[in-house]
Amino acid sequence: MPSNSEITSAHNPFFRHCLQLRDNRKRRRAGQFLIDGVVEIQRALKAGIEVQDFIVSPSCVDADFGPMATERSIPVRVLADSLLSKLSYGQVHDHPIAVAKIPELPLQALKLDASSLVLVLDRTEKPGNLGACLRSAAACGVSAVILTDPICDPFNANAIRASRGTMFRVPMAICGREELLARAQEHSLPVYAARVDAKNTLWDLPLDRGAVLVFGNEAEGLSDDWQQQVVRDFTIPMSSAADSLNLSISAAVTLYEARRQRLAGKI
Amino acid sequence: MPSNSEITSAHNPFFRHCLQLRDNRKRRRAGQFLIDGVVEIQRALKAGIEVQDFIVSPSCVDADFGPMATERSIPVRVLADSLLSKLSYGQVHDHPIAVAKIPELPLQALKLDASSLVLVLDRTEKPGNLGACLRSAAACGVSAVILTDPICDPFNANAIRASRGTMFRVPMAICGREELLARAQEHSLPVYAARVDAKNTLWDLPLDRGAVLVFGNEAEGLSDDWQQQVVRDFTIPMSSAADSLNLSISAAVTLYEARRQRLAGKI
Repeated sequence: MPSNSEITSAHNPFFRHCLQLRDNRKRRRAGQFLIDGVVEIQRALKAGIEVQDFIVSPSCVDADFGPMATERSIPVRVLADSLLSKLSYGQVHDHPIAVAKIPELPLQALKLDASSLVLVLDRTEKPGNLGACLRSAAACGVSAVILTDPICDPFNANAIRASRGTMFRVPMAICGREELLARAQEHSLPVYAARVDAKNTLWDLPLDRGAVLVFGNEAEGLSDDWQQQVVRDFTIPMSSAADSLNLSISAAVTLYEARRQRLAGKI
Repeated sequence: MPSNSEITSAHNPFFRHCLQLRDNRKRRRAGQFLIDGVVEIQRALKAGIEVQDFIVSPSCVDADFGPMATERSIPVRVLADSLLSKLSYGQVHDHPIAVAKIPELPLQALKLDASSLVLVLDRTEKPGNLGACLRSAAACGVSAVILTDPICDPFNANAIRASRGTMFRVPMAICGREELLARAQEHSLPVYAARVDAKNTLWDLPLDRGAVLVFGNEAEGLSDDWQQQVVRDFTIPMSSAADSLNLSISAAVTLYEARRQRLAGKI
Protein backbone atom coordinates (compact mmCIF):
# COMPACT_ATOMS: atom_id res chain seq x y z
CA MET A 1 0.00 0.00 0.00
CA PRO A 2 1.54 3.31 -0.98
CA SER A 3 1.95 5.60 1.98
CA ASN A 4 -0.37 8.25 0.62
CA SER A 5 -3.44 6.14 -0.19
CA GLU A 6 -6.29 7.48 1.92
CA ILE A 7 -7.29 5.54 5.03
CA THR A 8 -11.07 5.62 5.35
CA SER A 9 -11.83 2.81 7.80
CA ALA A 10 -11.90 3.31 11.55
CA HIS A 11 -10.72 -0.31 11.80
CA ASN A 12 -7.45 0.45 10.04
CA PRO A 13 -4.61 -0.76 12.32
CA PHE A 14 -2.50 2.39 11.88
CA PHE A 15 -5.45 4.63 12.75
CA ARG A 16 -6.33 2.47 15.74
CA HIS A 17 -2.74 2.51 16.94
CA CYS A 18 -2.59 6.31 16.70
CA LEU A 19 -5.90 6.69 18.53
CA GLN A 20 -4.42 4.71 21.43
CA LEU A 21 -1.61 7.26 21.71
CA ARG A 22 -4.21 9.68 23.15
CA ASP A 23 -4.28 7.47 26.24
CA ASN A 24 -1.54 8.32 28.75
CA ARG A 25 -0.71 4.74 29.70
CA LYS A 26 -0.80 3.33 26.20
CA ARG A 27 1.31 6.22 24.98
CA ARG A 28 4.01 5.42 27.49
CA ARG A 29 3.90 1.74 26.60
CA ALA A 30 4.21 2.49 22.88
CA GLY A 31 6.97 5.04 23.49
CA GLN A 32 5.28 7.33 20.98
CA PHE A 33 3.20 10.48 21.16
CA LEU A 34 1.25 12.74 18.83
CA ILE A 35 2.05 16.34 17.94
CA ASP A 36 -0.84 18.45 16.60
CA GLY A 37 -0.29 21.42 14.33
CA VAL A 38 2.36 22.66 11.90
CA VAL A 39 4.07 25.10 14.27
CA GLU A 40 4.30 22.52 17.03
CA ILE A 41 5.66 19.87 14.62
CA GLN A 42 8.22 22.30 13.21
CA ARG A 43 9.46 23.12 16.68
CA ALA A 44 9.69 19.43 17.58
CA LEU A 45 11.65 18.64 14.41
CA LYS A 46 14.06 21.50 15.03
CA ALA A 47 14.62 20.22 18.54
CA GLY A 48 15.62 16.83 17.18
CA ILE A 49 12.44 14.97 18.16
CA GLU A 50 12.21 11.83 16.01
CA VAL A 51 9.07 12.09 13.90
CA GLN A 52 8.09 8.72 12.49
CA ASP A 53 4.93 9.51 10.53
CA PHE A 54 3.05 12.54 9.32
CA ILE A 55 -0.72 12.31 9.28
CA VAL A 56 -2.84 14.60 7.12
CA SER A 57 -6.31 14.61 5.63
CA PRO A 58 -7.46 15.87 2.24
CA SER A 59 -8.48 19.11 4.02
CA CYS A 60 -4.99 19.84 5.39
CA VAL A 61 -3.83 22.59 3.09
CA ASP A 62 -1.23 24.29 5.23
CA ALA A 63 1.36 25.91 2.98
CA ASP A 64 4.12 25.14 5.47
CA PHE A 65 3.43 21.44 5.63
CA GLY A 66 4.42 20.42 2.09
CA PRO A 67 8.03 21.63 2.28
CA MET A 68 8.42 20.20 5.78
CA ALA A 69 7.31 16.76 4.65
CA THR A 70 9.23 16.59 1.38
CA GLU A 71 12.46 17.80 3.02
CA ARG A 72 12.59 14.64 5.10
CA SER A 73 11.96 11.04 4.28
CA ILE A 74 9.09 10.63 6.69
CA PRO A 75 6.02 8.67 5.52
CA VAL A 76 2.90 10.77 5.02
CA ARG A 77 -0.32 8.96 5.92
CA VAL A 78 -3.58 10.35 4.59
CA LEU A 79 -6.67 9.90 6.76
CA ALA A 80 -10.22 10.72 5.72
CA ASP A 81 -11.35 14.03 7.25
CA SER A 82 -13.72 12.22 9.59
CA LEU A 83 -10.90 10.02 10.93
CA LEU A 84 -8.48 12.90 11.37
CA SER A 85 -11.18 14.77 13.29
CA LYS A 86 -11.47 11.81 15.63
CA LEU A 87 -7.74 11.56 16.11
CA SER A 88 -6.82 15.22 16.40
CA TYR A 89 -6.73 17.25 19.58
CA GLY A 90 -9.71 19.60 19.47
CA GLN A 91 -11.40 17.44 16.85
CA VAL A 92 -10.38 19.45 13.83
CA HIS A 93 -9.29 18.01 10.51
CA ASP A 94 -7.40 20.92 9.05
CA HIS A 95 -4.06 20.50 10.78
CA PRO A 96 -1.47 17.77 10.36
CA ILE A 97 -0.42 15.45 13.16
CA ALA A 98 2.98 13.86 13.67
CA VAL A 99 3.66 10.53 15.31
CA ALA A 100 6.89 10.97 17.23
CA LYS A 101 9.11 8.97 19.50
CA ILE A 102 8.95 10.01 23.17
CA PRO A 103 12.43 11.35 23.88
CA GLU A 104 14.36 10.18 26.89
CA LEU A 105 14.89 13.11 29.17
CA PRO A 106 17.59 12.06 31.61
CA LEU A 107 18.91 14.62 34.05
CA GLN A 108 22.49 13.74 33.12
CA ALA A 109 21.90 15.02 29.58
CA LEU A 110 21.20 18.56 30.82
CA LYS A 111 24.07 21.01 30.68
CA LEU A 112 24.07 22.98 33.89
CA ASP A 113 26.58 25.15 35.67
CA ALA A 114 26.78 27.43 38.68
CA SER A 115 25.01 30.26 36.85
CA SER A 116 22.06 28.22 35.52
CA LEU A 117 18.49 29.31 36.12
CA VAL A 118 16.43 26.16 36.54
CA LEU A 119 12.68 25.78 36.92
CA VAL A 120 11.57 22.66 38.79
CA LEU A 121 7.94 21.57 38.65
CA ASP A 122 7.25 18.95 41.30
CA ARG A 123 4.38 16.50 40.87
CA THR A 124 2.51 18.76 38.47
CA GLU A 125 -0.93 17.40 37.86
CA LYS A 126 -2.57 19.40 35.09
CA PRO A 127 -1.14 19.21 31.58
CA GLY A 128 -2.46 22.70 30.81
CA ASN A 129 -0.50 24.14 33.74
CA LEU A 130 2.60 22.24 32.73
CA GLY A 131 2.40 23.52 29.17
CA ALA A 132 1.75 27.10 30.32
CA CYS A 133 4.80 26.91 32.63
CA LEU A 134 6.95 25.63 29.78
CA ARG A 135 5.78 28.48 27.54
CA SER A 136 6.73 31.07 30.17
CA ALA A 137 10.01 29.30 30.89
CA ALA A 138 10.85 29.41 27.19
CA ALA A 139 9.97 33.11 27.01
CA CYS A 140 12.03 33.86 30.07
CA GLY A 141 15.01 32.01 28.69
CA VAL A 142 15.61 29.58 31.53
CA SER A 143 18.56 27.19 31.34
CA ALA A 144 16.33 24.16 31.90
CA VAL A 145 13.01 22.88 33.19
CA ILE A 146 13.11 19.77 35.36
CA LEU A 147 9.98 17.78 36.11
CA THR A 148 10.34 15.88 39.36
CA ASP A 149 7.94 12.95 39.72
CA PRO A 150 5.39 14.49 37.33
CA ILE A 151 1.82 13.26 37.76
CA CYS A 152 0.72 14.37 34.32
CA ASP A 153 2.48 13.37 31.13
CA PRO A 154 4.35 16.22 29.41
CA PHE A 155 3.59 14.54 26.07
CA ASN A 156 -0.13 14.92 26.64
CA ALA A 157 -1.72 16.93 23.80
CA ASN A 158 -3.00 19.59 26.17
CA ALA A 159 0.50 20.22 27.55
CA ILE A 160 1.95 20.57 24.06
CA ARG A 161 -0.87 22.90 23.02
CA ALA A 162 -0.64 25.07 26.14
CA SER A 163 3.10 25.41 25.56
CA ARG A 164 2.45 26.37 21.93
CA GLY A 165 5.16 23.87 21.04
CA THR A 166 7.78 25.89 22.94
CA MET A 167 8.25 22.86 25.21
CA PHE A 168 10.47 21.40 22.52
CA ARG A 169 12.75 24.42 22.70
CA VAL A 170 13.47 24.33 26.41
CA PRO A 171 16.08 21.89 27.71
CA MET A 172 13.98 19.52 29.81
CA ALA A 173 14.54 16.54 32.09
CA ILE A 174 12.41 14.20 34.17
CA CYS A 175 13.81 12.75 37.38
CA GLY A 176 13.18 12.18 41.07
CA ARG A 177 13.60 14.72 43.85
CA GLU A 178 16.78 13.22 45.31
CA GLU A 179 18.45 13.11 41.94
CA LEU A 180 17.59 16.77 41.31
CA LEU A 181 18.91 17.84 44.71
CA ALA A 182 22.16 15.94 44.20
CA ARG A 183 22.65 17.59 40.83
CA ALA A 184 21.95 21.06 42.28
CA GLN A 185 24.51 20.42 45.00
CA GLU A 186 27.05 19.27 42.43
CA HIS A 187 26.88 22.71 40.79
CA SER A 188 26.47 24.59 44.08
CA LEU A 189 23.09 25.79 42.87
CA PRO A 190 20.87 27.06 45.70
CA VAL A 191 17.36 25.62 45.76
CA TYR A 192 14.44 27.94 46.46
CA ALA A 193 10.98 26.52 47.05
CA ALA A 194 7.71 28.40 46.63
CA ARG A 195 5.42 28.06 49.64
CA VAL A 196 2.28 30.00 50.44
CA ASP A 197 3.28 30.46 54.10
CA ALA A 198 6.97 31.34 53.66
CA LYS A 199 8.26 34.46 55.37
CA ASN A 200 10.60 35.64 52.64
CA THR A 201 9.23 36.92 49.38
CA LEU A 202 10.58 36.27 45.89
CA TRP A 203 12.09 39.76 46.06
CA ASP A 204 14.30 38.72 48.97
CA LEU A 205 16.00 36.03 46.89
CA PRO A 206 19.40 36.65 45.31
CA LEU A 207 18.40 35.62 41.81
CA ASP A 208 21.13 37.48 39.95
CA ARG A 209 23.11 34.22 39.98
CA GLY A 210 22.42 30.54 39.48
CA ALA A 211 19.27 29.26 41.15
CA VAL A 212 16.86 26.36 41.18
CA LEU A 213 13.24 27.46 41.65
CA VAL A 214 10.84 24.75 42.81
CA PHE A 215 7.04 24.85 42.51
CA GLY A 216 4.89 22.09 44.01
CA ASN A 217 1.69 20.35 43.10
CA GLU A 218 -1.28 22.60 42.24
CA ALA A 219 -3.48 21.41 45.10
CA GLU A 220 -1.04 20.26 47.75
CA GLY A 221 2.02 22.39 47.18
CA LEU A 222 5.40 20.89 48.03
CA SER A 223 5.61 17.75 50.11
CA ASP A 224 7.42 17.87 53.46
CA ASP A 225 10.26 15.84 51.98
CA TRP A 226 11.51 19.02 50.38
CA GLN A 227 11.64 20.91 53.63
CA GLN A 228 14.98 19.84 55.06
CA GLN A 229 16.80 19.95 51.83
CA VAL A 230 15.63 23.32 50.70
CA VAL A 231 17.97 26.22 51.23
CA ARG A 232 15.21 28.79 51.43
CA ASP A 233 11.46 29.07 51.05
CA PHE A 234 9.83 32.05 49.43
CA THR A 235 6.32 33.28 48.80
CA ILE A 236 4.64 35.54 46.30
CA PRO A 237 2.76 38.04 48.46
CA MET A 238 -0.99 38.13 47.92
CA SER A 239 -3.57 40.65 48.93
CA SER A 240 -6.52 39.47 50.99
CA ALA A 241 -8.74 39.53 47.90
CA ALA A 242 -7.20 36.27 46.68
CA ASP A 243 -6.26 33.03 48.36
CA SER A 244 -4.00 31.56 45.73
CA LEU A 245 -2.21 32.09 42.45
CA ASN A 246 -2.26 29.75 39.51
CA LEU A 247 0.88 27.60 39.21
CA SER A 248 1.84 28.97 35.81
CA ILE A 249 1.35 32.54 37.04
CA SER A 250 3.50 31.91 40.13
CA ALA A 251 6.26 30.37 38.05
CA ALA A 252 6.21 33.18 35.47
CA VAL A 253 6.25 35.96 38.06
CA THR A 254 9.24 34.36 39.82
CA LEU A 255 11.13 33.57 36.61
CA TYR A 256 10.73 37.14 35.42
CA GLU A 257 11.94 38.45 38.77
CA ALA A 258 15.04 36.30 38.20
CA ARG A 259 15.40 37.69 34.72
CA ARG A 260 15.13 41.23 36.06
CA GLN A 261 17.80 40.64 38.67
CA ARG A 262 20.09 38.86 36.23
CA LEU A 263 19.73 41.71 33.75
CA ALA A 264 20.50 44.24 36.47
CA GLY A 265 23.47 42.12 37.57
CA LYS A 266 24.47 41.55 33.94
CA ILE A 267 24.64 37.79 34.29
CA MET B 1 -45.87 26.21 44.29
CA PRO B 2 -43.57 26.23 47.31
CA SER B 3 -40.08 27.32 46.44
CA ASN B 4 -38.49 24.06 47.49
CA SER B 5 -40.64 21.55 45.58
CA GLU B 6 -38.36 19.71 43.21
CA ILE B 7 -38.42 20.69 39.55
CA THR B 8 -38.13 17.56 37.43
CA SER B 9 -39.31 18.67 33.99
CA ALA B 10 -36.96 20.16 31.41
CA HIS B 11 -39.98 22.17 30.22
CA ASN B 12 -40.27 24.01 33.51
CA PRO B 13 -40.23 27.76 32.74
CA PHE B 14 -37.77 28.62 35.51
CA PHE B 15 -35.33 25.92 34.38
CA ARG B 16 -35.66 27.03 30.75
CA HIS B 17 -35.08 30.64 31.70
CA CYS B 18 -31.93 29.73 33.65
CA LEU B 19 -30.63 27.60 30.80
CA GLN B 20 -30.88 30.64 28.53
CA LEU B 21 -28.58 32.57 30.87
CA ARG B 22 -25.72 30.39 29.58
CA ASP B 23 -26.06 32.24 26.28
CA ASN B 24 -24.12 35.53 26.20
CA ARG B 25 -26.73 37.52 24.31
CA LYS B 26 -29.72 36.22 26.25
CA ARG B 27 -27.87 36.81 29.49
CA ARG B 28 -27.36 40.44 28.64
CA ARG B 29 -31.00 40.85 27.61
CA ALA B 30 -32.23 39.28 30.84
CA GLY B 31 -29.78 41.31 32.93
CA GLN B 32 -29.03 38.17 34.94
CA PHE B 33 -26.18 35.69 35.15
CA LEU B 34 -25.38 32.42 36.90
CA ILE B 35 -22.74 31.84 39.56
CA ASP B 36 -21.54 28.25 40.02
CA GLY B 37 -20.14 27.01 43.30
CA VAL B 38 -20.36 27.92 46.98
CA VAL B 39 -17.08 29.84 47.19
CA GLU B 40 -17.93 31.89 44.13
CA ILE B 41 -21.45 32.64 45.40
CA GLN B 42 -20.11 33.63 48.83
CA ARG B 43 -17.67 36.04 47.26
CA ALA B 44 -20.39 37.52 45.06
CA LEU B 45 -22.72 38.00 48.05
CA LYS B 46 -19.98 39.66 50.08
CA ALA B 47 -19.33 42.02 47.19
CA GLY B 48 -22.96 43.10 47.19
CA ILE B 49 -24.01 41.23 44.04
CA GLU B 50 -27.79 40.87 44.11
CA VAL B 51 -28.58 37.14 44.20
CA GLN B 52 -32.20 36.49 43.23
CA ASP B 53 -32.44 32.70 43.44
CA PHE B 54 -30.42 29.80 44.74
CA ILE B 55 -30.57 26.58 42.75
CA VAL B 56 -29.65 23.26 44.30
CA SER B 57 -30.35 19.60 43.67
CA PRO B 58 -30.96 16.78 46.15
CA SER B 59 -27.24 15.93 45.75
CA CYS B 60 -25.98 19.36 46.82
CA VAL B 61 -24.84 18.70 50.35
CA ASP B 62 -22.33 21.48 50.84
CA ALA B 63 -22.13 22.33 54.53
CA ASP B 64 -21.55 26.01 53.75
CA PHE B 65 -24.65 26.36 51.64
CA GLY B 66 -27.33 25.91 54.28
CA PRO B 67 -26.28 28.82 56.51
CA MET B 68 -25.72 31.03 53.48
CA ALA B 69 -29.26 30.41 52.22
CA THR B 70 -31.10 30.67 55.52
CA GLU B 71 -29.28 33.88 56.47
CA ARG B 72 -30.93 35.68 53.60
CA SER B 73 -34.45 35.66 52.29
CA ILE B 74 -33.54 34.33 48.87
CA PRO B 75 -35.75 31.62 47.33
CA VAL B 76 -34.14 28.19 47.05
CA ARG B 77 -35.16 26.26 43.94
CA VAL B 78 -34.57 22.52 43.89
CA LEU B 79 -33.82 20.93 40.54
CA ALA B 80 -33.57 17.22 39.86
CA ASP B 81 -29.91 16.11 39.63
CA SER B 82 -30.23 15.55 35.90
CA LEU B 83 -31.50 19.11 35.36
CA LEU B 84 -28.84 20.69 37.54
CA SER B 85 -26.21 18.76 35.58
CA LYS B 86 -27.55 20.27 32.39
CA LEU B 87 -27.60 23.75 33.83
CA SER B 88 -24.32 23.79 35.69
CA TYR B 89 -20.95 24.79 34.29
CA GLY B 90 -18.92 21.62 33.94
CA GLN B 91 -22.09 19.51 34.04
CA VAL B 92 -21.92 18.55 37.68
CA HIS B 93 -24.87 18.38 40.04
CA ASP B 94 -23.13 18.65 43.38
CA HIS B 95 -22.67 22.39 43.61
CA PRO B 96 -25.29 25.10 44.02
CA ILE B 97 -25.89 27.81 41.44
CA ALA B 98 -27.05 31.36 42.08
CA VAL B 99 -29.11 33.48 39.72
CA ALA B 100 -27.81 37.01 40.13
CA LYS B 101 -28.43 40.44 38.69
CA ILE B 102 -25.68 41.65 36.37
CA PRO B 103 -24.23 44.65 38.20
CA GLU B 104 -23.75 47.93 36.43
CA LEU B 105 -20.06 48.69 36.31
CA PRO B 106 -19.78 52.35 35.42
CA LEU B 107 -16.35 53.95 35.42
CA GLN B 108 -17.65 56.84 37.54
CA ALA B 109 -18.33 54.47 40.41
CA LEU B 110 -14.65 53.55 40.72
CA LYS B 111 -12.66 55.36 43.36
CA LEU B 112 -9.32 56.30 41.86
CA ASP B 113 -6.60 58.74 42.79
CA ALA B 114 -3.11 59.70 41.68
CA SER B 115 -1.57 56.67 43.39
CA SER B 116 -3.94 54.04 41.98
CA LEU B 117 -2.63 50.96 40.21
CA VAL B 118 -5.11 50.13 37.45
CA LEU B 119 -5.16 47.15 35.10
CA VAL B 120 -6.90 47.79 31.78
CA LEU B 121 -7.84 44.86 29.56
CA ASP B 122 -8.75 46.08 26.09
CA ARG B 123 -11.04 44.01 23.87
CA THR B 124 -10.25 40.78 25.69
CA GLU B 125 -11.69 37.86 23.79
CA LYS B 126 -11.33 34.75 25.90
CA PRO B 127 -13.29 34.46 29.15
CA GLY B 128 -10.62 32.13 30.59
CA ASN B 129 -7.95 34.78 30.04
CA LEU B 130 -10.16 37.47 31.52
CA GLY B 131 -10.84 35.39 34.62
CA ALA B 132 -7.16 34.47 35.03
CA CYS B 133 -6.21 38.17 34.79
CA LEU B 134 -8.81 39.07 37.41
CA ARG B 135 -7.45 36.38 39.75
CA SER B 136 -3.91 37.74 39.43
CA ALA B 137 -5.12 41.31 39.77
CA ALA B 138 -6.93 40.36 42.98
CA ALA B 139 -3.81 38.62 44.31
CA CYS B 140 -1.63 41.58 43.43
CA GLY B 141 -4.01 44.00 45.11
CA VAL B 142 -4.67 46.38 42.24
CA SER B 143 -6.87 49.40 42.83
CA ALA B 144 -9.16 48.46 39.94
CA VAL B 145 -9.57 46.49 36.73
CA ILE B 146 -11.15 48.28 33.81
CA LEU B 147 -12.44 46.40 30.79
CA THR B 148 -12.44 48.62 27.72
CA ASP B 149 -14.74 47.42 24.95
CA PRO B 150 -14.57 43.79 26.09
CA ILE B 151 -15.36 41.19 23.43
CA CYS B 152 -16.11 38.45 25.91
CA ASP B 153 -18.62 38.79 28.70
CA PRO B 154 -17.07 38.96 32.19
CA PHE B 155 -20.20 37.24 33.52
CA ASN B 156 -19.52 34.18 31.40
CA ALA B 157 -19.20 31.06 33.59
CA ASN B 158 -15.67 30.36 32.36
CA ALA B 159 -14.49 33.84 33.39
CA ILE B 160 -15.99 33.45 36.86
CA ARG B 161 -14.46 29.98 37.25
CA ALA B 162 -11.01 31.05 36.01
CA SER B 163 -11.08 33.95 38.49
CA ARG B 164 -12.08 31.53 41.28
CA GLY B 165 -14.72 34.09 42.17
CA THR B 166 -12.07 36.70 43.00
CA MET B 167 -13.56 38.84 40.22
CA PHE B 168 -16.22 39.93 42.69
CA ARG B 169 -13.54 41.23 45.05
CA VAL B 170 -11.77 43.52 42.62
CA PRO B 171 -13.25 46.93 41.90
CA MET B 172 -14.19 46.64 38.23
CA ALA B 173 -15.61 48.87 35.52
CA ILE B 174 -16.54 48.51 31.86
CA CYS B 175 -16.19 51.50 29.56
CA GLY B 176 -14.81 52.75 26.25
CA ARG B 177 -11.22 53.71 25.53
CA GLU B 178 -11.83 57.47 25.42
CA GLU B 179 -13.66 57.44 28.72
CA LEU B 180 -10.81 55.54 30.37
CA LEU B 181 -8.20 57.91 28.98
CA ALA B 182 -10.14 60.95 30.16
CA ARG B 183 -10.41 59.48 33.64
CA ALA B 184 -6.68 58.67 33.73
CA GLN B 185 -5.92 62.25 32.73
CA GLU B 186 -8.25 63.58 35.40
CA HIS B 187 -6.11 61.87 38.07
CA SER B 188 -2.80 62.53 36.27
CA LEU B 189 -2.33 58.77 35.98
CA PRO B 190 0.24 57.82 33.33
CA VAL B 191 -0.92 55.17 30.86
CA TYR B 192 1.51 52.39 29.90
CA ALA B 193 0.63 50.01 27.09
CA ALA B 194 2.10 46.55 26.58
CA ARG B 195 3.37 46.01 23.04
CA VAL B 196 5.53 43.18 21.72
CA ASP B 197 7.73 45.57 19.73
CA ALA B 198 8.20 48.34 22.30
CA LYS B 199 11.75 49.45 23.09
CA ASN B 200 11.34 49.96 26.81
CA THR B 201 10.81 47.03 29.11
CA LEU B 202 8.48 46.78 32.06
CA TRP B 203 11.54 47.31 34.26
CA ASP B 204 12.06 50.77 32.77
CA LEU B 205 8.66 51.96 33.97
CA PRO B 206 8.34 54.05 37.13
CA LEU B 207 5.69 51.88 38.76
CA ASP B 208 6.29 52.96 42.34
CA ARG B 209 3.51 55.49 41.89
CA GLY B 210 0.07 55.56 40.25
CA ALA B 211 -0.14 53.89 36.85
CA VAL B 212 -2.58 52.53 34.32
CA LEU B 213 -1.33 49.33 32.63
CA VAL B 214 -3.04 48.44 29.37
CA PHE B 215 -3.05 45.00 27.71
CA GLY B 216 -4.63 44.50 24.29
CA ASN B 217 -6.53 41.75 22.56
CA GLU B 218 -4.96 38.27 22.70
CA ALA B 219 -4.51 37.93 18.93
CA GLU B 220 -4.22 41.50 17.70
CA GLY B 221 -2.72 43.36 20.64
CA LEU B 222 -3.64 47.01 21.04
CA SER B 223 -5.32 48.88 18.23
CA ASP B 224 -3.57 51.89 16.69
CA ASP B 225 -6.11 54.17 18.34
CA TRP B 226 -4.19 53.77 21.56
CA GLN B 227 -0.90 54.85 20.04
CA GLN B 228 -1.17 58.61 20.22
CA GLN B 229 -2.73 58.72 23.59
CA VAL B 230 -0.41 56.39 25.31
CA VAL B 231 2.33 57.95 27.39
CA ARG B 232 4.72 55.05 26.99
CA ASP B 233 4.87 51.58 25.51
CA PHE B 234 6.63 48.73 27.20
CA THR B 235 7.44 45.15 26.44
CA ILE B 236 8.15 42.02 28.45
CA PRO B 237 11.44 40.76 26.99
CA MET B 238 11.31 37.28 25.54
CA SER B 239 14.04 34.88 24.61
CA SER B 240 14.12 33.55 21.06
CA ALA B 241 12.64 30.24 22.26
CA ALA B 242 9.19 31.82 22.49
CA ASP B 243 7.20 34.17 20.30
CA SER B 244 4.58 35.30 22.73
CA LEU B 245 3.35 35.24 26.28
CA ASN B 246 -0.16 34.45 27.38
CA LEU B 247 -2.23 37.56 28.25
CA SER B 248 -2.77 36.54 31.85
CA ILE B 249 0.94 35.79 32.28
CA SER B 250 1.91 39.18 30.82
CA ALA B 251 -0.52 41.01 33.06
CA ALA B 252 0.59 39.14 36.19
CA VAL B 253 4.33 39.66 35.53
CA THR B 254 3.75 43.39 35.04
CA LEU B 255 1.42 43.79 38.01
CA TYR B 256 3.92 42.05 40.29
CA GLU B 257 6.72 44.26 39.01
CA ALA B 258 4.52 47.21 40.03
CA ARG B 259 3.94 45.61 43.41
CA ARG B 260 7.70 45.13 43.86
CA GLN B 261 8.43 48.76 43.02
CA ARG B 262 5.62 50.06 45.19
CA LEU B 263 6.83 47.96 48.10
CA ALA B 264 10.38 49.24 47.61
CA GLY B 265 9.05 52.81 47.37
CA LYS B 266 6.69 52.15 50.29
CA ILE B 267 3.63 53.41 48.46
